[in-house]
Amino acid sequence: MTNNQDNSTFSTKRSTVQEIEAIINQTIPILDHGFIRIIDYMGDDNAIVQSARVSYGKGTTQINADKALISYLMRHHHTSPFEMCEIKFHIKAPIFVARQWLRHRTANVNEYSARYSILDREFYLPSKENISSQSTNNKQCRVSNSNLKEEEIEFVIDILKNDANRCYDNYLQLMNINENTTEKIDPNKSGIARELSRMNLNLNYYTQWYWKIDLHNLLHFLYLRTHNHAQYEIRIYAQKILEIVQKWVPHTYEAFINYRLESKSFSKNALNFIKKQIKGEDITFSESGISKREWNDICEYFNLEDIIIK
Amino acid sequence: MTNNQDNSTFSTKRSTVQEIEAIINQTIPILDHGFIRIIDYMGDDNAIVQSARVSYGKGTTQINADKALISYLMRHHHTSPFEMCEIKFHIKAPIFVARQWLRHRTANVNEYSARYSILDREFYLPSKENISSQSTNNKQCRVSNSNLKEEEIEFVIDILKNDANRCYDNYLQLMNINENTTEKIDPNKSGIARELSRMNLNLNYYTQWYWKIDLHNLLHFLYLRTHNHAQYEIRIYAQKILEIVQKWVPHTYEAFINYRLESKSFSKNALNFIKKQIKGEDITFSESGISKREWNDICEYFNLEDIIIK
Amino acid sequence: MTNNQDNSTFSTKRSTVQEIEAIINQTIPILDHGFIRIIDYMGDDNAIVQSARVSYGKGTTQINADKALISYLMRHHHTSPFEMCEIKFHIKAPIFVARQWLRHRTANVNEYSARYSILDREFYLPSKENISSQSTNNKQCRVSNSNLKEEEIEFVIDILKNDANRCYDNYLQLMNINENTTEKIDPNKSGIARELSRMNLNLNYYTQWYWKIDLHNLLHFLYLRTHNHAQYEIRIYAQKILEIVQKWVPHTYEAFINYRLESKSFSKNALNFIKKQIKGEDITFSESGISKREWNDICEYFNLEDIIIK
Amino acid sequence: MTNNQDNSTFSTKRSTVQEIEAIINQTIPILDHGFIRIIDYMGDDNAIVQSARVSYGKGTTQINADKALISYLMRHHHTSPFEMCEIKFHIKAPIFVARQWLRHRTANVNEYSARYSILDREFYLPSKENISSQSTNNKQCRVSNSNLKEEEIEFVIDILKNDANRCYDNYLQLMNINENTTEKIDPNKSGIARELSRMNLNLNYYTQWYWKIDLHNLLHFLYLRTHNHAQYEIRIYAQKILEIVQKWVPHTYEAFINYRLESKSFSKNALNFIKKQIKGEDITFSESGISKREWNDICEYFNLEDIIIK
Repeated sequence: MTNNQDNSTFSTKRSTVQEIEAIINQTIPILDHGFIRIIDYMGDDNAIVQSARVSYGKGTTQINADKALISYLMRHHHTSPFEMCEIKFHIKAPIFVARQWLRHRTANVNEYSARYSILDREFYLPSKENISSQSTNNKQCRVSNSNLKEEEIEFVIDILKNDANRCYDNYLQLMNINENTTEKIDPNKSGIARELSRMNLNLNYYTQWYWKIDLHNLLHFLYLRTHNHAQYEIRIYAQKILEIVQKWVPHTYEAFINYRLESKSFSKNALNFIKKQIKGEDITFSESGISKREWNDICEYFNLEDIIIK
Repeated sequence: MTNNQDNSTFSTKRSTVQEIEAIINQTIPILDHGFIRIIDYMGDDNAIVQSARVSYGKGTTQINADKALISYLMRHHHTSPFEMCEIKFHIKAPIFVARQWLRHRTANVNEYSARYSILDREFYLPSKENISSQSTNNKQCRVSNSNLKEEEIEFVIDILKNDANRCYDNYLQLMNINENTTEKIDPNKSGIARELSRMNLNLNYYTQWYWKIDLHNLLHFLYLRTHNHAQYEIRIYAQKILEIVQKWVPHTYEAFINYRLESKSFSKNALNFIKKQIKGEDITFSESGISKREWNDICEYFNLEDIIIK
Repeated sequence: MTNNQDNSTFSTKRSTVQEIEAIINQTIPILDHGFIRIIDYMGDDNAIVQSARVSYGKGTTQINADKALISYLMRHHHTSPFEMCEIKFHIKAPIFVARQWLRHRTANVNEYSARYSILDREFYLPSKENISSQSTNNKQCRVSNSNLKEEEIEFVIDILKNDANRCYDNYLQLMNINENTTEKIDPNKSGIARELSRMNLNLNYYTQWYWKIDLHNLLHFLYLRTHNHAQYEIRIYAQKILEIVQKWVPHTYEAFINYRLESKSFSKNALNFIKKQIKGEDITFSESGISKREWNDICEYFNLEDIIIK
Repeated sequence: MTNNQDNSTFSTKRSTVQEIEAIINQTIPILDHGFIRIIDYMGDDNAIVQSARVSYGKGTTQINADKALISYLMRHHHTSPFEMCEIKFHIKAPIFVARQWLRHRTANVNEYSARYSILDREFYLPSKENISSQSTNNKQCRVSNSNLKEEEIEFVIDILKNDANRCYDNYLQLMNINENTTEKIDPNKSGIARELSRMNLNLNYYTQWYWKIDLHNLLHFLYLRTHNHAQYEIRIYAQKILEIVQKWVPHTYEAFINYRLESKSFSKNALNFIKKQIKGEDITFSESGISKREWNDICEYFNLEDIIIK
């Protein structure tokens, strides 16, 4: 058994990706106190090709090039070969981000437990450019470019900072623990248990976890969490992980961009609309069977502004 | 399509359990603002027996009685027949409880989203008898019977109540929303988005979710969460669900108590120790190969106080 | 506890779908000896709406109509509300179909065990119109319309029938069991165990299992298995289940057809091609960055035969 | 991207286990034509300790030794740290073994597809000592020591060999493919598709698959499949994998043997019986509330032959 924490180098017969070896164990900072750290990985583009060839046997020999085979697998949703790669991260993020993140059920997780140990005084404060008002056309989002006055932004930051600090002070008071000495604050008090006092902390306090996931499920996570409707605070983690995927499995990354991230799916009714457009035939909104929202989405997408319905 | 919310009654050919029909859709209060509500269920003890008989074919005809077959399945860890029953709950609980609960990955979940909607001013305050100090012999627990002075208990409640209320006041300030009128507080401010302001809330705020799980995985959840090392605030939900299981599938409940909840497993080395005890032969701690902690656990369990190691 | 096998009727407060009640417990024949039988179900279109409204709170009030909300959920891949419905089937199908079917991991299964019980002399023989030669343009398929001569078809059926019967005869010989009397064939022989003798059976022997799955995962199964590249012998089961879904959750069915089954997804490069086509601008194959196979697929789809590459 | 098939050596910063490096990529023969081959692995005993320490924070510092911590985790069913290790195998086994194996749903699988490619003429024939009659006291097993006459054994082998060979001959006839030349057998026939002809093969034909699984789920697989009630033909694979686990994660292996494989669990009623035995007090069968079968199991286990009930 060897220790991978002191950055020693070992010799192995396993698939090895030099671009990942160059950054493994390194802390990649995200937000004000968060990070992503690659702990371990298994497989590479070649491992995907290998396992696909086991499934299809001689049936894959015509697709000689590995890159073309990966592209074929992605395009036709042959997902199981992508499950043959695995990656393990150490993540540190605010609790409200962790809550979204850990809803993805197909990963292995070990999270820091505030029943066992005391959380640090580390909480997330959004930077000024990330503070903005509720979006009016999307029920779940903020507007992407802040239109708030400097004064309101400072008001917001003050509230968040003061409440987080006071709640942390009281978290220590509840446990009756002095932050610096870890001795009792008041020798006549017992203090209450960690599992109780933690409830006084805010949702922007940082937590951390080990997260291990296969490539197929990671790509699904990235598909959802790099979307511009995903909350900024999780999207920025997802974007950084997407860059890691590009280093790790470059052919898969390229196919993922082409056939997933930047692909678009059209409904039966929308397809009929597109067919008409290509033929140069007219189709009215009421004929189309498409909802107003979807109609406008499609028109915007294809720059058909003149038929958008206000 | 029919609506099950107005408590209408329909006729069905499905397995039906009268004891559950009597409480379906009813809100069972837990903690100060939480609840459990049964929304739907599928199957009963008989459904387990039915599916086991499909697997074993004529190979099960010797075990005639349904109850004996369920007992046999539980004892021998034949888990798949128990997956053939399903139950759906509506749960309301504090966020720190939800965090533990939703770590169980083999369930279906729809949780309230504070990106879409504003949370109510509802937070958990432990009752006096549930406020106690950190356990000294268990790293994750509080002591079970509070030994705190009334004065300290009031100090704790004051902190929790004040911080929760102030953070909620500021949650509204951040969104610039008047709690009563839902109008703007300050007409010159925009307020920030819900997805941002929610981070100012404490972990004792209530959330709610729909939770659907099969009986096998529910029993595993109950095994872990009714354990006396589970935190009181989730244990009390688990205990109530265990009572529901007793009404729903009484034979399964009985087998679960006998072969799981009140069973005990012994290690290879502990078994050797027990064999010696039964034969009346001596075995010393050093011979046993058992850790001190495990040795003392076993001695306590079998009332062998004289050989406990201090 | 009540028994649902004798087709009795009970009263319930659960969501009830009359179209499913009308066919529950009935055997729907598939292939020569197979069947599908609905054993139980939980939820309906309304249950999906209900759980979505829990997630989004007041954030969904604008989408008043249930049907529009289901359409919205399907279009935007909000999958968790569809997991809130569950259905349980009894399936009988050939072993080679079961092998494909049970690769779907997100379902609960109880399969007949040939270690416990003897399989019946029931094997699948394809009907004449389903016997055809290997497809030349798809590595995994047969040609859809049989071009075989009657003579060759009869040759095929003879082989399959004779081998299946002889292997079954020998299966009984191996166990030393008389098919009619279930007595020993040869009183001087022991016969070998069921778990061994079963290996002599062919992959077209019928097996059966209970199968319980949530609606989201069922739709994914149907998406893959109703596809014209799926093997006919599993596709015909999938098509029948799709009809059941239409009765069970008609709004969901309609959204599934529009946004999944009859939708189409285009890659980044293909989208660029379509945009050009709509604008009436030319784009050559070499400029497009699209593989030849994908190019031709798109051209065929939009009836642009003149630019197909031979 | 590097290729791990030519047995090259690379340098890595990942946890590396020399005992596994020594056998990686090597084919370990099982049964007459099967094998196990380690393709890749992630983590070691130390990775388990690392991730546990992330969860418990300073709460684990008292358990200094890694081995003691692993033992503690195993004893208290803290399973998530064991999910942080992953291993990938290439397995070749008879189809009836694959059918049992692939029922374990928490693994990633790529199996050889007989729709894409032709299976080889390789089928399992049990060795003489593994051919035996149905167990009389266990509905699913064979007797462990063959009591069959040499003559009957040869009769069995003849049947299995002849049927497998004839079915394979006909498999080729159905596809109209000459085994040696891969040309058409009869130039006037088309032959039928691979997806159809494969149904003529027997369940003892060999298939192969890539199988990737985390350590926690692997141990659960091994717990079930090394059990003496598991069929010999899968048990022998499980036993070999257990040896690999011993090389890979020796501390985990030791804890698994002590707390799982050679541990024993007793029901509530059985525990009461044991307590009485230790105190030297009598308890009768009828008082005990234990089923006859369980009573006799316990008596046998503790060598209390005089109270076994015939």
